[in-house]
Amino acid sequence: MTSVAWTNIGELSTADPSLGEGALGVLRDAAIVAVDGVISWVGPSSSCPAADEAHDMAGRAVLPGFVDAHMHPVFAGDRAAEFDARMTGTPYTAGGIRTTVAATRAASDADLARNAARLAAEAARQGTTTLEAKSGYGLTVRDEQRSLVAARTVTDETTFLGAHVVPVEYADRPDDYVELVCGEMLDACAPHAKWADVFIERGAFDRDQARAILEAARAKGLGLRVHANQLTQGEGVRLGVELGAASVDHCTNLGDEDIEALAGSGTVATLVPGAEFSTRSAYAPARRLWDAGVTVAIASDCNPGSSYTTSMPLMIALAVREMGLSPAQAVWAATAGGAASLRRDDIGVLAPGRRADLIALDAPSHVHLAYRPGVPLVTDVWRSADRLPSAV
Amino acid sequence: MTSVAWTNIGELSTADPSLGEGALGVLRDAAIVAVDGVISWVGPSSSCPAADEAHDMAGRAVLPGFVDAHMHPVFAGDRAAEFDARMTGTPYTAGGIRTTVAATRAASDADLARNAARLAAEAARQGTTTLEAKSGYGLTVRDEQRSLVAARTVTDETTFLGAHVVPVEYADRPDDYVELVCGEMLDACAPHAKWADVFIERGAFDRDQARAILEAARAKGLGLRVHANQLTQGEGVRLGVELGAASVDHCTNLGDEDIEALAGSGTVATLVPGAEFSTRSAYAPARRLWDAGVTVAIASDCNPGSSYTTSMPLMIALAVREMGLSPAQAVWAATAGGAASLRRDDIGVLAPGRRADLIALDAPSHVHLAYRPGVPLVTDVWRSADRLPSAV
Repeated sequence: MTSVAWTNIGELSTADPSLGEGALGVLRDAAIVAVDGVISWVGPSSSCPAADEAHDMAGRAVLPGFVDAHMHPVFAGDRAAEFDARMTGTPYTAGGIRTTVAATRAASDADLARNAARLAAEAARQGTTTLEAKSGYGLTVRDEQRSLVAARTVTDETTFLGAHVVPVEYADRPDDYVELVCGEMLDACAPHAKWADVFIERGAFDRDQARAILEAARAKGLGLRVHANQLTQGEGVRLGVELGAASVDHCTNLGDEDIEALAGSGTVATLVPGAEFSTRSAYAPARRLWDAGVTVAIASDCNPGSSYTTSMPLMIALAVREMGLSPAQAVWAATAGGAASLRRDDIGVLAPGRRADLIALDAPSHVHLAYRPGVPLVTDVWRSADRLPSAV
Repeated sequence: MTSVAWTNIGELSTADPSLGEGALGVLRDAAIVAVDGVISWVGPSSSCPAADEAHDMAGRAVLPGFVDAHMHPVFAGDRAAEFDARMTGTPYTAGGIRTTVAATRAASDADLARNAARLAAEAARQGTTTLEAKSGYGLTVRDEQRSLVAARTVTDETTFLGAHVVPVEYADRPDDYVELVCGEMLDACAPHAKWADVFIERGAFDRDQARAILEAARAKGLGLRVHANQLTQGEGVRLGVELGAASVDHCTNLGDEDIEALAGSGTVATLVPGAEFSTRSAYAPARRLWDAGVTVAIASDCNPGSSYTTSMPLMIALAVREMGLSPAQAVWAATAGGAASLRRDDIGVLAPGRRADLIALDAPSHVHLAYRPGVPLVTDVWRSADRLPSAV
């Protein structure tokens, strides 16, 4: 048994409102103790129990490590030229994904794993202690399967996204592709995945195709996630809620009936402000969702087309600036909200029984993540009480 | 004599359009040599002359260090609570500055210098190799003077901003404060400053007050800068142009006549997207200014009230996302544009005769600064060919 203490925490954001002040459950002058990587005690610094190892936080802010519940880190190549063109006038469509599919198919297994590891390390340096990783740039049985094997090298939260877009070779017979995804591809991929996901959108998959894929995945024991209502106000959110998906992601274009459906459900709305930033789109209505009682998560959507960022601090700043969340709400959505999106009750909150995944800031408060946009503030990152490299 | 070479630069952004492709004068597979901190040679990597010391850039992008021509790093305290309130509904006014004035007056000289040094180091880690630093939170003869002494510890580009706001003790007799600024305060501050600046705005100083202060400063040999057209479409830009100011800063609310005045002038428009981000304001019309032939700079406006960031990479991403500049134009504005704003011809461009202030990215292109928002990409920073600590 090894115990570790963090003392003199100026502001501890527990992310459990029942433990302290406000949406983030904030405690002042606090301490945490972990035993074998799991939190055993949280309380005032002045009465902190002794531990084998102690870190003096010197008044800095401490919060849960970020839980990034929507990433696409398995791919090859980049699309900087497409981004450059988009910023000077070319609109974003789902079609650009095919550029990355060609590069991913041509890449070796080692290259795919190396790229995923590079992005996971970059995310961890900025405070992400748990991430989700999707396939979806392979779109053949073999390339989806090896994408998930690569994803597994960086996380257990792997998601089969064979239904990202219809690959060019199936352009004239999309239903044959849906049959492949539901059959042979799912069989090959399910052993490597915890989740299945479908991009429901004009130009990608429609409601009936999505239902077939999601029901087949559920029958294989996979949990469900959906890319819903990104570019148009489609039926993705309502289908996700109906099928009991853990999360509907994007939620940029919502009607009242979508918000009502989410509010009465166990489905999390995972918002991805980075995609809206990098495609110059309107932002998802986070404040309306929050006020309606929907569980909100924010995630990076890290991918080479529409959101090539791993920065959860910037996602928090954008959720505040652009989506109307308070800094406390945005940090909750990036920690406890992300954990809810992955149906995890062992991470995302700093309380006894949870994993000791925590970060310290070069700042006195979590507010600084929004107040000091773009500045690398994460000085220390611990996962299961083990220190990881950080960006500062 | 010591010579240093940087070889195998995948993409070299010179920031001089006459030296290469596009607005940034891009060269591929390039190298740079500096002798005693000054660039002596730029050309193809394959014909790079020998040097005492060589850095292999391994195909990465290299660009000039950022020139941040608008910062307020001399102050005490922070205004996180005001930011939090603003993000949940309280509007921004110039009045919040007085909170920082009270904290600054109460701080020791050492505290002011320490805070400025902290922010200058934070900026340098993100690629800023030259910064401007204003006074303006003292607003007494003694406090303005010692603010400039603190500013001088981090840069030669110091700016006397006694006319930031009218301090509370002069609220009933603002013209007496203007007289103080033009007389005793200017006498005490001019030896420590290169520039003088006035905040021309409703709630701060009007056109006639500003003219009196700027003319007095010019008579003392100071160069002129103006905070103009931030919150309202006032007369600041036109007054700045009329008086031959080096730069008019903010430029958020411009009329056609303001743009015309700038286009025919030697005055730079220094835009500060961080302030518009953090006050949730509309953004300055950078693209219109650029297309009209105005010299555009972008800067952080780092200050504890309206833009508490030192991140020039985020300013570039915002200038692209929100202001319509291409990535190449935004990087030009953050390097050569900043140098023009400070009337410096020894920095901001990578060409023979310029100071060897350069940065390398963990990326193949300058485009990634906008394409990968929030990600710390600056891996190496050199000023006068000396390596500084970087954020990655």
